[in-house]
Amino acid sequence: MNNQRGKHSIVFSNRPNIVGAAAVGGVKESQGPQKKWFDFTLEDDIFGEKTWEKAEGKMVKKAIDLALSNGRVSEKQVDILLGGDLINQLMIANYAARDLQMPFLGLYGACSTMTESLIAGSVFIDGGYASCAVCAASSHYCTAERQFRMPLEHGNQRPPSAQWTATAAGSMVLSKDRAPGRNICVTAATIGRVLDPGIKDVNEMGAAMAPAAADTLLTHFRDLGRSPEDYDVILSGDLGHVGKKILMDLMAKQGVPMAENYNDCGALMYDDSQDVHSGGSGCGCSASIFAGRIIKEMRQGKIRRALIMSTGALLSTISSGQGETIPGIAHAVVLEAEGGE
Amino acid sequence: MNNQRGKHSIVFSNRPNIVGAAAVGGVKESQGPQKKWFDFTLEDDIFGEKTWEKAEGKMVKKAIDLALSNGRVSEKQVDILLGGDLINQLMIANYAARDLQMPFLGLYGACSTMTESLIAGSVFIDGGYASCAVCAASSHYCTAERQFRMPLEHGNQRPPSAQWTATAAGSMVLSKDRAPGRNICVTAATIGRVLDPGIKDVNEMGAAMAPAAADTLLTHFRDLGRSPEDYDVILSGDLGHVGKKILMDLMAKQGVPMAENYNDCGALMYDDSQDVHSGGSGCGCSASIFAGRIIKEMRQGKIRRALIMSTGALLSTISSGQGETIPGIAHAVVLEAEGGE
Repeated sequence: MNNQRGKHSIVFSNRPNIVGAAAVGGVKESQGPQKKWFDFTLEDDIFGEKTWEKAEGKMVKKAIDLALSNGRVSEKQVDILLGGDLINQLMIANYAARDLQMPFLGLYGACSTMTESLIAGSVFIDGGYASCAVCAASSHYCTAERQFRMPLEHGNQRPPSAQWTATAAGSMVLSKDRAPGRNICVTAATIGRVLDPGIKDVNEMGAAMAPAAADTLLTHFRDLGRSPEDYDVILSGDLGHVGKKILMDLMAKQGVPMAENYNDCGALMYDDSQDVHSGGSGCGCSASIFAGRIIKEMRQGKIRRALIMSTGALLSTISSGQGETIPGIAHAVVLEAEGGE
Repeated sequence: MNNQRGKHSIVFSNRPNIVGAAAVGGVKESQGPQKKWFDFTLEDDIFGEKTWEKAEGKMVKKAIDLALSNGRVSEKQVDILLGGDLINQLMIANYAARDLQMPFLGLYGACSTMTESLIAGSVFIDGGYASCAVCAASSHYCTAERQFRMPLEHGNQRPPSAQWTATAAGSMVLSKDRAPGRNICVTAATIGRVLDPGIKDVNEMGAAMAPAAADTLLTHFRDLGRSPEDYDVILSGDLGHVGKKILMDLMAKQGVPMAENYNDCGALMYDDSQDVHSGGSGCGCSASIFAGRIIKEMRQGKIRRALIMSTGALLSTISSGQGETIPGIAHAVVLEAEGGE
């Protein structure tokens, strides 16, 4: 049956299959290096809606629709929808769940939501509690910035450590049944703890998340008796350039240096000419890179085993206003491609 | 192994055990009919802290501490913490998870969070993905009112349909191992859908949630081939007096009338003299009544089989400001007491 190795990691003996996946990118995101990996790109970030929030809702539904369709799964076959976003009271995911009419569990892990939903979905599938689960996460620059930082119209300056909330959404469809041809499955996961390095600056999200990311990686390697070279790709998200460097320093200090196979979704989302400083952030950043590029590269046979880890900065405008620090969390998931070579 | 009956309901073949449970009540709550069922009551709702949010955080940690202690489980034995609250970005649960240092999945289902966390926790235990899981939810009148409605200092009038956010917290400790003596376990669950009856008034939460609650009950009875008389107690929360009446009307129209064994946590939390209009609400209302009164009555042999269903109004101040309606969701869990008679 289902084995648990160590306290924080799970090995999935039934290997839930990722039969469908899709990524949606906003305008700025589709001008960057991820362009060719998106399944759908926006021509305008308002996406024909009256508000940014409704646009984000339409984006995540688009990602889910495309993932279902490329997974050849109908809405009625879905036993559970698991997802979340950054907007207050999970507004985006709640309205998507209303429109989709699937049994729904709302999740909040800030930008760690994509791997949080993959872990919960994999547990439901692996244990036989669902035959088909949809996981999804999204973010939108215009909804997140005004909620967490400044109104866009304010045009405030951003320090070099600031990250740019990606306008993007990602969805994966998990099934107990294998996909035809080359199959991708979830084989293990590590659930993170909340760690707090004492950062108070909302423009230092990478520094706030890096210790939690390092803790989850170290726990993962320890629990499973693995090391970084056991993976073709290790991808965190979204530490950004600054947080990525901190993570690499922390890992090296712990005797587990990260090598060429490691990168970060925040560092990958934009190129240097796009003026985003430390890189991308937001639930949609890692969700769209995992559901877009990583799944496609696995299907193409370029990646056999990937460790993907969304990272979340547990920032609240209320806690910041009360002088509280910003803790971080990170959840890791192992994806493996098999067959179809 | 684990059976799934119907699409939306789960039968737990390994029957996860509730070995510990505790409820914490605020000042107003401990002046009402639930007083004797709380494990701890506040003398002052600020609970020695500098902000209402920090007070709520201390309450939920107190509920978790007491549940672990009466379940004779140490913090280090806990494999996963599942919980949430109403405050932006899950602030209360995030900081509790930081202080407790347990692997953590944050959940948001508005006032449905307690049964959402019980379902997720039961899946982790039943499937062997965790040996011990802590589930928790909280709310605080002073943190919720200023976030969702008006600053307290404004002293605005409340219509008869308005509910009073309970200052309360509840926690349950799930284990793969049975408790000594009379044992309480989770035997089944039904995951709800998001339904939207088109309510826009934030003082009509009962009406916003009642259709989702009726849908979950009807689905539960259909999936499991059961009817209301199969339960000693059916308890929803928190529809309040107004929502409870709407639910009873909806169920009667569907040919499944609710009888004397049905009640609602919102209707039970306060008595008529406490001037709370339609009754209690907030994640902590049903969490504290389930973890307080219901678990104690089951241990005392007064209840053998209970159907508990937390209900959530998926309200966001942003969506309300954009003219959106308030959808509802409800998740149901079956608790059974066995042995020790």
